[in-house]
Amino acid sequence: MHDTETGHPADLMDKLVSLCKRRGFIFQSSEIYGGLGSVYDYGPLGAELKNNIRDDWWSAMVHRHEDIEGIESGILMHPEVWVASGHVGGFTDPLTECRNCHRRFRADELEEVAAGNVAAQQCPVCGTTGEFTEPRQFNLMFKTFMGPVEEDAAIVYLRPETAQGSYVNFRNVADSARQKIPFGVAQIGKAFRNEITPGNFIFRTREFEQMEMQFFVKPGTDEEWFEVWRERRMAWVRSLGIRSERLRLHPHGPDELAHYAKRAEDIQYLFPFGWQEFEGIHNRTDFDLTRHQERAGKKLEYFEQATNERYVPYVVETAVGLNRALLVVLADAYDEEEVESETRVVLRLAPHLAPVKAAVFPLVKKDGMPEIAEKLAADLRGRLNVFYDASGSIGRRYRRQDEAGTPFCVTIDGQTVEDDSVTVRDRDTLEQVRVPLDGVLAFVQDAVSAARRDG
Amino acid sequence: MHDTETGHPADLMDKLVSLCKRRGFIFQSSEIYGGLGSVYDYGPLGAELKNNIRDDWWSAMVHRHEDIEGIESGILMHPEVWVASGHVGGFTDPLTECRNCHRRFRADELEEVAAGNVAAQQCPVCGTTGEFTEPRQFNLMFKTFMGPVEEDAAIVYLRPETAQGSYVNFRNVADSARQKIPFGVAQIGKAFRNEITPGNFIFRTREFEQMEMQFFVKPGTDEEWFEVWRERRMAWVRSLGIRSERLRLHPHGPDELAHYAKRAEDIQYLFPFGWQEFEGIHNRTDFDLTRHQERAGKKLEYFEQATNERYVPYVVETAVGLNRALLVVLADAYDEEEVESETRVVLRLAPHLAPVKAAVFPLVKKDGMPEIAEKLAADLRGRLNVFYDASGSIGRRYRRQDEAGTPFCVTIDGQTVEDDSVTVRDRDTLEQVRVPLDGVLAFVQDAVSAARRDG
Repeated sequence: MHDTETGHPADLMDKLVSLCKRRGFIFQSSEIYGGLGSVYDYGPLGAELKNNIRDDWWSAMVHRHEDIEGIESGILMHPEVWVASGHVGGFTDPLTECRNCHRRFRADELEEVAAGNVAAQQCPVCGTTGEFTEPRQFNLMFKTFMGPVEEDAAIVYLRPETAQGSYVNFRNVADSARQKIPFGVAQIGKAFRNEITPGNFIFRTREFEQMEMQFFVKPGTDEEWFEVWRERRMAWVRSLGIRSERLRLHPHGPDELAHYAKRAEDIQYLFPFGWQEFEGIHNRTDFDLTRHQERAGKKLEYFEQATNERYVPYVVETAVGLNRALLVVLADAYDEEEVESETRVVLRLAPHLAPVKAAVFPLVKKDGMPEIAEKLAADLRGRLNVFYDASGSIGRRYRRQDEAGTPFCVTIDGQTVEDDSVTVRDRDTLEQVRVPLDGVLAFVQDAVSAARRDG
Repeated sequence: MHDTETGHPADLMDKLVSLCKRRGFIFQSSEIYGGLGSVYDYGPLGAELKNNIRDDWWSAMVHRHEDIEGIESGILMHPEVWVASGHVGGFTDPLTECRNCHRRFRADELEEVAAGNVAAQQCPVCGTTGEFTEPRQFNLMFKTFMGPVEEDAAIVYLRPETAQGSYVNFRNVADSARQKIPFGVAQIGKAFRNEITPGNFIFRTREFEQMEMQFFVKPGTDEEWFEVWRERRMAWVRSLGIRSERLRLHPHGPDELAHYAKRAEDIQYLFPFGWQEFEGIHNRTDFDLTRHQERAGKKLEYFEQATNERYVPYVVETAVGLNRALLVVLADAYDEEEVESETRVVLRLAPHLAPVKAAVFPLVKKDGMPEIAEKLAADLRGRLNVFYDASGSIGRRYRRQDEAGTPFCVTIDGQTVEDDSVTVRDRDTLEQVRVPLDGVLAFVQDAVSAARRDG
């Protein structure tokens, strides 16, 4: 049964949540205490998958571009940063409260409140009509107190985006790395937003991870760089193995544009809950640098030697949510098919993203097979992430690896003892080929590299 | 000039801070706003060095140990976690305030206050005597408010250690990864402590990153596992290339042991400011799991099939500060020597940790040399982190790479044009050898792998 609009298996989100917990991709945070609203922990397979997406982005962005520098700024920053960026004043959602049950809602998500008819709104929780407060603005930044005094002077915020860390370091990076415009600053890190209505599993969470790149360009060249980065980012998203019919670009209309943006396009994915953004490309103009220049009283200009010009650079930003990208990868990889009149659940992850590259099995626990299999697994370990499994029927072991997204299962069988060959089973085609024992590493490595190149 | 006790160059900390800023290893956070107390940002070279140490730990710990699973839990956790762990009640420092100048101090760092003679204490800031308050306990956890209401019910903490995230996920990991005791759970992530007196550059900061592994063992085997892990951790530290005469183990005396610990040993490094801990090995007994079991009302026992026994496992923890490890690596690598009557500053980083593995230079900007050099750099990029540089004298370019810790500089010269050979200059020995153009990748890769193995 597949959903006719999205092509996803029916009830995919429920199935994903269940698989993620069962197989150790994603657990609810502090589950033994009943969980913490909308925070998630990544289990053994999930942490590995997240690392693989993260490393792939870093490598594609930082290592393969001579004109991009990677940095890592703190989660805690000087509070003036967020005044200058506009977040203290304007990073808010309108909030309304039902006076009867005291539940709070985003005002723009309640139809009558949003239309200005507060008195006509019925509470979706307790059913009371007309008890909603007038909407007021609620700031989405988490705040805390630094130093041993809880007073206003010591308020600091958990950053709601990594971008500002790149802007305030613009001069430091340009000077120390001797970069000339155009050049980019990339970083990966946690960000926090006190969302009023988080949800859809790891899609919208209060703690999340961003992979953002700020590309500093000469004013007037920003439109053309926007196009370049939109194409490059779409190519990267496709390289993750995402089906192109579930991808689209969504240009922001005038009503959707953030206060700092001249132009923005989202890369959207067709989730089971509809089309939603997981990456954005933004022309942020010189808004942020100019604001910091004014507030900090420090020049953030660039001097172009070739033309003797001095200017505040424009910024083209590419910003992807790592957790959302992981959800896209999982949702797109999840598949069910009938094999030998049983339903096989398989994660068709791109091999370079798969947490485990190869599983190694002895067919049976005798005739020297476990010894050969253990030695092979030990030889591969450290070069490849491998998993050794000797328990249960071979069919059951295959199914466990299908659910983990492992692209190759290597089985040591009776013939191995005779001729040093093993079977390698392909997760997607279910085909089995015989490979020499000492050729397994190269076989798997080549297949992983080829998949990455083709992606 | 070297310090006779530590062997470090004189004024090493000042020199390191300066080099780190100049070359883009580490910047003060929010520097354009005057900085944020004791938070630091990692620049292009620093982010790469940090990633290399992080990846090396993860690979050594998770990928090379069949019995260790990696996870990544949230920075925000259910507040009850910190009640159970003892942090809400007891993770405090005694604090005293000068009533005259209102500066606050750790009571144990002021001699007279610590001895109980508050009236005799003279303020080290304003010089007033006898104006200190009686010490009171100050909790070191940062707190914030989750959800759109600032009230007690919504208080959450920024985790002060990653360990608790591994404990509360103990059952989830064991079940999903089908691990049997003994096994470990490893994770890397940010933690936060509202230190009253941070300092010594990145040694003690309020935002920092931990690499922690919790090894769950059968009670009674904990002492022997403690020994195993102490040796394994020392071996890893040595593999970073740290001089053994600046390393020592410091067993905790009864006064030093944390409330949860039966035994603990620190791995200390001889910093310019003395012997200080940067990693700890702790026998945490069943303290944490038992406390969570009681408070959450969820069994955290393990059933051992072979013996039919049921028990709460003991935990041997290994905990290293990533930022401190990075400071150790930098401090140990920094060297000065006289070369051709000039002082050469060189970071003798282990090649597998070096941010840039090879720099590529055309000797002069003519005769086809830049084209060959650019092509070589492009071919290497993506396989190795390389840096292309064509500006300034060749001597100056070498010096810049020495300061960045780049182990190899590859120069395209007149002979390259004739016979396709290049010179490769070794950062440490200053020796130059000729290598075929198409053998540069293998030459550098082999040298990096060999250094890692020898470490």
